[in-house]
Amino acid sequence: MSKQYFDFEDTASRDRYKLLSGLIVPRPIGWIGTRRANGTFNLAPFSFFNVVSTAPPTVLFSGSSHSDRPKDSITLAEESGEFTVNIVSEEVAQAMSVTAGTFGPDDDEFAIAGLTAVAGKVVAAPMVAESPANLECRVSTVLDVGEGLTRIVVGRVVALHVDDSVLDDTRIDATSLRAVGRMSGNTYITTDHLFELPRPL
Amino acid sequence: MSKQYFDFEDTASRDRYKLLSGLIVPRPIGWIGTRRANGTFNLAPFSFFNVVSTAPPTVLFSGSSHSDRPKDSITLAEESGEFTVNIVSEEVAQAMSVTAGTFGPDDDEFAIAGLTAVAGKVVAAPMVAESPANLECRVSTVLDVGEGLTRIVVGRVVALHVDDSVLDDTRIDATSLRAVGRMSGNTYITTDHLFELPRPL
Repeated sequence: MSKQYFDFEDTASRDRYKLLSGLIVPRPIGWIGTRRANGTFNLAPFSFFNVVSTAPPTVLFSGSSHSDRPKDSITLAEESGEFTVNIVSEEVAQAMSVTAGTFGPDDDEFAIAGLTAVAGKVVAAPMVAESPANLECRVSTVLDVGEGLTRIVVGRVVALHVDDSVLDDTRIDATSLRAVGRMSGNTYITTDHLFELPRPL
Repeated sequence: MSKQYFDFEDTASRDRYKLLSGLIVPRPIGWIGTRRANGTFNLAPFSFFNVVSTAPPTVLFSGSSHSDRPKDSITLAEESGEFTVNIVSEEVAQAMSVTAGTFGPDDDEFAIAGLTAVAGKVVAAPMVAESPANLECRVSTVLDVGEGLTRIVVGRVVALHVDDSVLDDTRIDATSLRAVGRMSGNTYITTDHLFELPRPL
């Protein structure tokens, strides 16, 4: 191998984005539902997202740096203290990509993408009825990673809704779930090329 | 759809783990290299890992809850203030799974898995020579998400090494990279089933 070296202090922000979003793949997609103070709903996908703990059950998501202000989902989660995570299956991938667009602060991404909003059982943030699973979350911490615009929203999962078709007791059947992963640019992957590695000792 | 409801305050930790690690997929793998105070090296994979910002360039990883103490990588990153992230391609997937085993605090996972350790250019933590890309990181924050054992290590990416074969200027070629993603249990995916969704407006 012959490796090229990038000093990240001297690498343009756009190139850092291309390099990191191309190398750290595949990323899970957190389709984040939030509720505005006026009662309307917001929905947007984030791939700077993951589960980070199961005791306590914790997920986090973080905004893109391609903007001069934090993403609405970040601000709304902070203000309301609540959000949902909706799982993106192949069936709803096209609708997910519609909600990645730039909309006004009062637009309803559910209506624009033809999706059904259902209020959470525990939180008031909206869930995507068409998603195979929905997580209800309460914000536990918001971490500022610097330069003002990038904030990481850390949330505790308080409740979960999972469609019977993907559930075998408490095991998730990946083949039925058909989750979609994020690569770089407009590229996504399906999760059907599974393989096993032996469990280590 | 007919969804089953889980109140997470009343769900066993093991079931929360199965549900969340099965639903939040595919996850990227951060193969974390750290250096012990005595100069020996540690290497272990984490799928509770992602890029969370590119301005400043930031990644994070977090330990599993399946243990009575934090993972060595977490402790060593905290103590030394440094770590590397090594990208897992199909070529090194088997070696990665070997390093997921449970080893003693003085074992050298590089030697056990037949890998070559190379010191970073900026940090003293070790990089996997056989990986197609290596990120050098300095710890910026360690976030405790509660119950003592789960800590999230947040690091700033200060340098990057990328093999020429996966690089087209500053664009990463996913087809050459052949990154491996994590599903639940012992199941992984390849990243060759790519598809495009239109860029939203």
